[in-house]
Amino acid sequence: MTEGLSSSRSIIKYENDSFIAFEDEIAIEFPLTIYINQKEFATMVCSPSELEEMVIGFLASEGVIRFKKEIKQLTLDADRGFAYVELHKKEIKNQQYFSKRFIGSCCGKSRQFYFQNDIQTAKTSMISSTITANQCIHLMKKMQESSVVFKNTGGVHNAALCTSEEIIVSRSDIGRHNALDKLYGYSLLNGIPVKDKILVFSGRISSEILTKAAKIGVGIVLSKSAPTDLAIQLAEDLNITAVGFIRGSTFNIYSKPERIILN
Amino acid sequence: MTEGLSSSRSIIKYENDSFIAFEDEIAIEFPLTIYINQKEFATMVCSPSELEEMVIGFLASEGVIRFKKEIKQLTLDADRGFAYVELHKKEIKNQQYFSKRFIGSCCGKSRQFYFQNDIQTAKTSMISSTITANQCIHLMKKMQESSVVFKNTGGVHNAALCTSEEIIVSRSDIGRHNALDKLYGYSLLNGIPVKDKILVFSGRISSEILTKAAKIGVGIVLSKSAPTDLAIQLAEDLNITAVGFIRGSTFNIYSKPERIILN
Repeated sequence: MTEGLSSSRSIIKYENDSFIAFEDEIAIEFPLTIYINQKEFATMVCSPSELEEMVIGFLASEGVIRFKKEIKQLTLDADRGFAYVELHKKEIKNQQYFSKRFIGSCCGKSRQFYFQNDIQTAKTSMISSTITANQCIHLMKKMQESSVVFKNTGGVHNAALCTSEEIIVSRSDIGRHNALDKLYGYSLLNGIPVKDKILVFSGRISSEILTKAAKIGVGIVLSKSAPTDLAIQLAEDLNITAVGFIRGSTFNIYSKPERIILN
Repeated sequence: MTEGLSSSRSIIKYENDSFIAFEDEIAIEFPLTIYINQKEFATMVCSPSELEEMVIGFLASEGVIRFKKEIKQLTLDADRGFAYVELHKKEIKNQQYFSKRFIGSCCGKSRQFYFQNDIQTAKTSMISSTITANQCIHLMKKMQESSVVFKNTGGVHNAALCTSEEIIVSRSDIGRHNALDKLYGYSLLNGIPVKDKILVFSGRISSEILTKAAKIGVGIVLSKSAPTDLAIQLAEDLNITAVGFIRGSTFNIYSKPERIILN
């Protein structure tokens, strides 16, 4: 496990109409799988700090325990990302109600995939097309202008599927994943090829969001916010260009910068 | 189903050292349960728009389908929040890998609870203590100052458990739920009574976050961001005071305003 909640990483910054090398602090995203009484219970993705607190709080909020004393032993294997919980009671009630996800057991495609379904459905991008720095900035601006709900409520995420020139479709949702699912559904319903398209997104690029982008099949993801380290590793593996912090006339390129060119 | 992505709601605004009645636009949060071939598959919480796109995109990104033509029929019962999908194939592979959650079948406690575990573990707040408007603003400011990681990466959520005067413990995580789980775990590990404490949070108050706050057991939730309509209904039902948009010297009170008093 990496120490601390963030790590330093070399990225490319666009400002004053040029690209410069830059050392940036990136939030670490750490998958932790919890076993209860030797049985796989859940996998969560977190910042690697206070893991014991997090496991206990998670079990309490899922209704598995109510008090600390119900835990016989809690062992953390932080290097490999496992927490082993032994409870005094042998059986957990209503196990089918928990929000359980399983780790992928064969991670040939990328070691950063930790969910079985993701391994099977995320696609490696093969496109070689490019977009200009100004187009990145323009698309983000257009998407933000198109969201009336956010202006009114401050409560939704926006996402758009675009060509390098314009927005094809823009969707809003209180759930980050849902906004992307709506775009994916739109492209399937309308038979729109996506691999040469660009995904523009208002939220942070976590590994789950990057994975969703790879499932949709785009090669370029533009975000207003920050990525995590795991999302950047995944983007490298899947040959996806991840651009973040598009604000005003600047942005950062975190992976596969060759697809972003000067104006 | 309510039309549109937001609805109007009467709230109380604090500005210029006084409380005023205010009509605000609140993002709607809508639970949709998907059945596949007559079998419950998953429940997602979303903005109620483009539901057909969302269901198809979700099934594609989970690897259940690859093309639209694999769907024989998709019927939406938007009033009750159900989507019935009939596939040409009879069996779905690896169903245990999906991120399935079940609806609570007996919602006696509150009709807004749609997950079985939540019904059992969320607590109704019984506290009658109050805090002042200035204390709300002060606690939010303190929490934000305490987060070094956010300043460096822009990529984490912050949460703190507080008395009306000061922060007891503050935690950061890339996952909103994890930051709250860490606080919950901290209080269980250290035997800290929580029902008279205040939860301060950097992110939006969705129904899931409000539910988590009720599981921890606090009576007051302070947020920098917006709540959803479902979170406000839950807060009313669980007797929790929800305060949002704490920015500068103003904020909004969305539920149980009697716990927030003038300075």
